[in-house]
Amino acid sequence: MNILVLNAGSSSLKYQLIEMDHETIVAKGQAERIGIEGANFRHRPTGGKPEYTVELPIPDHEAAVKLVLDALAHPVHGVVSSKDEIHAVGHRVLHGGSEFSESVVITPEVKQAIRRYFILGPLHNPANLMGIEAIEKILPKTPMVAVFDTAFHQTMPPKAYVYGIPYEYYRRLQIRRYGFHGTSHRYVSMAAARFLGKNPQDLRIICCHLGNGSSITAVDRGKVVDTSMGLTPLEGLLMGTRAGDMDTAVVEYIMQQDKLSIEEVMTMLNKKSGLLGISERSSDMRDVFGAAQQGDKQCKLAVDILIHRIRKYIGAYAAVMGGVDAVVFTAGIGENNAELREMAVEKLEFIGIKVDPVRNRKKADAMDISADDASVKTLVIATNEELMIARDTLALTNPR
Amino acid sequence: MNILVLNAGSSSLKYQLIEMDHETIVAKGQAERIGIEGANFRHRPTGGKPEYTVELPIPDHEAAVKLVLDALAHPVHGVVSSKDEIHAVGHRVLHGGSEFSESVVITPEVKQAIRRYFILGPLHNPANLMGIEAIEKILPKTPMVAVFDTAFHQTMPPKAYVYGIPYEYYRRLQIRRYGFHGTSHRYVSMAAARFLGKNPQDLRIICCHLGNGSSITAVDRGKVVDTSMGLTPLEGLLMGTRAGDMDTAVVEYIMQQDKLSIEEVMTMLNKKSGLLGISERSSDMRDVFGAAQQGDKQCKLAVDILIHRIRKYIGAYAAVMGGVDAVVFTAGIGENNAELREMAVEKLEFIGIKVDPVRNRKKADAMDISADDASVKTLVIATNEELMIARDTLALTNPR
Repeated sequence: MNILVLNAGSSSLKYQLIEMDHETIVAKGQAERIGIEGANFRHRPTGGKPEYTVELPIPDHEAAVKLVLDALAHPVHGVVSSKDEIHAVGHRVLHGGSEFSESVVITPEVKQAIRRYFILGPLHNPANLMGIEAIEKILPKTPMVAVFDTAFHQTMPPKAYVYGIPYEYYRRLQIRRYGFHGTSHRYVSMAAARFLGKNPQDLRIICCHLGNGSSITAVDRGKVVDTSMGLTPLEGLLMGTRAGDMDTAVVEYIMQQDKLSIEEVMTMLNKKSGLLGISERSSDMRDVFGAAQQGDKQCKLAVDILIHRIRKYIGAYAAVMGGVDAVVFTAGIGENNAELREMAVEKLEFIGIKVDPVRNRKKADAMDISADDASVKTLVIATNEELMIARDTLALTNPR
Repeated sequence: MNILVLNAGSSSLKYQLIEMDHETIVAKGQAERIGIEGANFRHRPTGGKPEYTVELPIPDHEAAVKLVLDALAHPVHGVVSSKDEIHAVGHRVLHGGSEFSESVVITPEVKQAIRRYFILGPLHNPANLMGIEAIEKILPKTPMVAVFDTAFHQTMPPKAYVYGIPYEYYRRLQIRRYGFHGTSHRYVSMAAARFLGKNPQDLRIICCHLGNGSSITAVDRGKVVDTSMGLTPLEGLLMGTRAGDMDTAVVEYIMQQDKLSIEEVMTMLNKKSGLLGISERSSDMRDVFGAAQQGDKQCKLAVDILIHRIRKYIGAYAAVMGGVDAVVFTAGIGENNAELREMAVEKLEFIGIKVDPVRNRKKADAMDISADDASVKTLVIATNEELMIARDTLALTNPR
């Protein structure tokens, strides 16, 4: 059983073909700069076939999907003998509003809902729908599943998701905290429970997904009870280029002082802030962290702010759950930056969180880095959103 | 020694005359609706003299200050035989920017600085300066002190006060977290240490100032290390009419959906949100809490959101300080709503916070409501910003 996982961004399309009997990646790759000059496509088969990258015009997501399918069934670079060997397709979809608390088989109604939430995910949802419609055209009989980034967070109670604004904004415009990275938080919290040999129902887990975009989620006995991202992915931690938590009055202040439009300020908050804005150097934590260690003051401040916020969220979410059994680090920064992990939990011994410095420096897809005398487990678990999407797709479709 | 404490709002002026040998209030009162139709003035002497309220036009803060001084020296209602018996005046000033970390004697330079921060405190700082200039006119020889709402928070480290936006906004426009209610947090944290018979240097205190405006502050060994209000008092907890923490992207979303200006949205966030916006009934916690207990769903949600946020901040600030020795509740809601206090700390036993329900129902200006087996002290302390201002004024001036 081969399941194709598609993750469409505003100008990109990532894919993985996963063979589900052994959950192995058969091929993966991506189209980049879709609809922009300098578009390129990269295909990486894993079974010894040659990989390749080509620059060519990719006018839209339909063209990108066609490139993916052609590459997968290509006589030289391909990994299947015909497109029919792609048995189902799982689509990552950014925003499912309040409507989807789990993955669903794609029907005309689901497509309509994805369209309805264009307004909440203006960059991603249209791209996600284009990916879906491109597959429909080329593989009209192949079952498809939508896996929403927001779905896992739908268990949050209203006290966590309702903002302090007039309630009619929630009623009329559905303005609320949604949260994102749901597929990652779900995968990682389940993997953490499995790693610990426990039932997710018996655990209070704080998941720290730290990547270019970052979010922290409180998973209380299998259910999300709070998460740091909000209506959009802008809220919460300091991210690569996103500002995270701040006084909303800053928006007005900057608009007035610099005579900027709201769109200009929001672009600044999403694209020029975060690590990039503070470090004045890079949005990439590897660069920023390296420079901080060399003594760069702005980079050190950026790292300090991120750590301060991680610590605050861990404390806050432990309080929300009345305690915590496991803290999990995942995604690019969370999986790879051991020093940052150590610094983030440094002052948290009073709630039983303590990392063993030697264990913390090891590398593994899943590892326990807690000190022996820690009452809370601190884990590092490699996230795998694509596998989670493939599993959901397998479970919901009956390919062949 | 009589010290007059003035607290000027945009259209109000509150005052207290405090006799400092015994720190007793000799008279207090307020002018309301200054510059607006229906202005009134209320004078309340405490030594048995008759109090009175009059409706009369009060065109500006200078007129209001004149009313206050005339009332204090009035042959029937007055408490001093001449204005010369007012030995010094302490002014509450909202915003001192990054410039003032303590109270100061008012000089032309200080007035200039208060003017410089009009932009950061557009409603309050101009009123504060008008109050200062009115006293200068009428009592030109009386020494005056400015006590800033932001000063106590100036010890925060950059990781707590720098927002995740491009750093040049801090450099060029001084956009950062300032925090407010500083005089209250200072008074209450010092009073808590005294009540516990400890040195503030030995305590990690979380101060919960819960009133119509609310903020929580982490006071680590006498110094503020984080606070929930930000550039303006909008950030943080759910307040009477202020929204508190939220995704800044909500601002853009509402502007676009409802075709509102940034000023309209900010007014909504400051004046129509919070308890009022969620409860759809009242900004007053007594009304909202009462209705919630009667089963009103919106009011219950408003209470739940406030409690959820208090709990998160307590957890976050404990994490920031690596633990907590005392949690203090103060101000209107914090001092008077025992049930809310109990609910707020309900899930915090894992960090040693536990309230004794019987002690919690008592009333006192300072009381320990912790359970016997709590390792963290939970206190209720009545705040007294006016007394703090008077003490600073006494310490900095040499009246007579």
